[in-house]
Amino acid sequence: MGAVIVRAPVAADRAALLEALERCGAFSALEVEIAIGMIDEALAGDYSVVGVEVDGVLRGYTLLGRATLTERSWYLYWICVHPAYERRGLAQALQRAADDLVQAAGGDKIVLETSGRSGYARSRAFYERAGFAETGRIRDFYAAGDDCIIYCKTLPT
Amino acid sequence: MGAVIVRAPVAADRAALLEALERCGAFSALEVEIAIGMIDEALAGDYSVVGVEVDGVLRGYTLLGRATLTERSWYLYWICVHPAYERRGLAQALQRAADDLVQAAGGDKIVLETSGRSGYARSRAFYERAGFAETGRIRDFYAAGDDCIIYCKTLPT
Repeated sequence: MGAVIVRAPVAADRAALLEALERCGAFSALEVEIAIGMIDEALAGDYSVVGVEVDGVLRGYTLLGRATLTERSWYLYWICVHPAYERRGLAQALQRAADDLVQAAGGDKIVLETSGRSGYARSRAFYERAGFAETGRIRDFYAAGDDCIIYCKTLPT
Repeated sequence: MGAVIVRAPVAADRAALLEALERCGAFSALEVEIAIGMIDEALAGDYSVVGVEVDGVLRGYTLLGRATLTERSWYLYWICVHPAYERRGLAQALQRAADDLVQAAGGDKIVLETSGRSGYARSRAFYERAGFAETGRIRDFYAAGDDCIIYCKTLPT
């Protein structure tokens, strides 16, 4: 594997990011549609996005936004790595880049929501290793038997 | 006090709703700006909104929206009653109208976020009387010492 580079995506990266989302397997067709819509909004400046490039192609990204009406809190909306490029530290690189981005913008807290379903156990373990802790749970939020778990991470200031 | 009517707001009600928001006292200038922007989006069909009218003028409203990617969950974003019309059951009427609206749309869960500050104790007591229970808390979310409390209410199906 060649050099791993963390950088801001540009419009030319859209197709590679869409491929990562579609191949990822964690997202439904509707979720992919919403995710790519938010990438387009991020490219227009409405969200913050960071990508991770391997051999010249973006293979993952994370998308964040300031939490309205808060002083220093941000939401982490998506994090996705192409499955052919898993287990090489790309998600960790994205998570560190997210922390840096939030801190550089004066933020000190990252909140994210994820599913409590068993299929998301690996994602939850990743967030916990990255320093997130569960701070709330909405029972049956997504569907019956599919809770929303709210995670939060406080960054050093 | 004349007849209390629960009805959908129209564009001509915008000024009365803005007055209720500004006079309410619970909202900062930025919050009022966001709230009126969401009313404009609701009038355009992007959110659901219900108003409560006294003597021909809307004196309060509540604004809700489907929670994306959920089967039956809704967010309650705002509920506001003009302070000169408090303690007459308008907020309760709006809360019941919100429940009805969500149920009529096939929903069975309403989630809202509010501040843990002491100034919001009356709001929290109102939500708890209306059947909401705390399901999460993000410490220092809005600012240092200002937690976000997540409330949820499950409607009978």
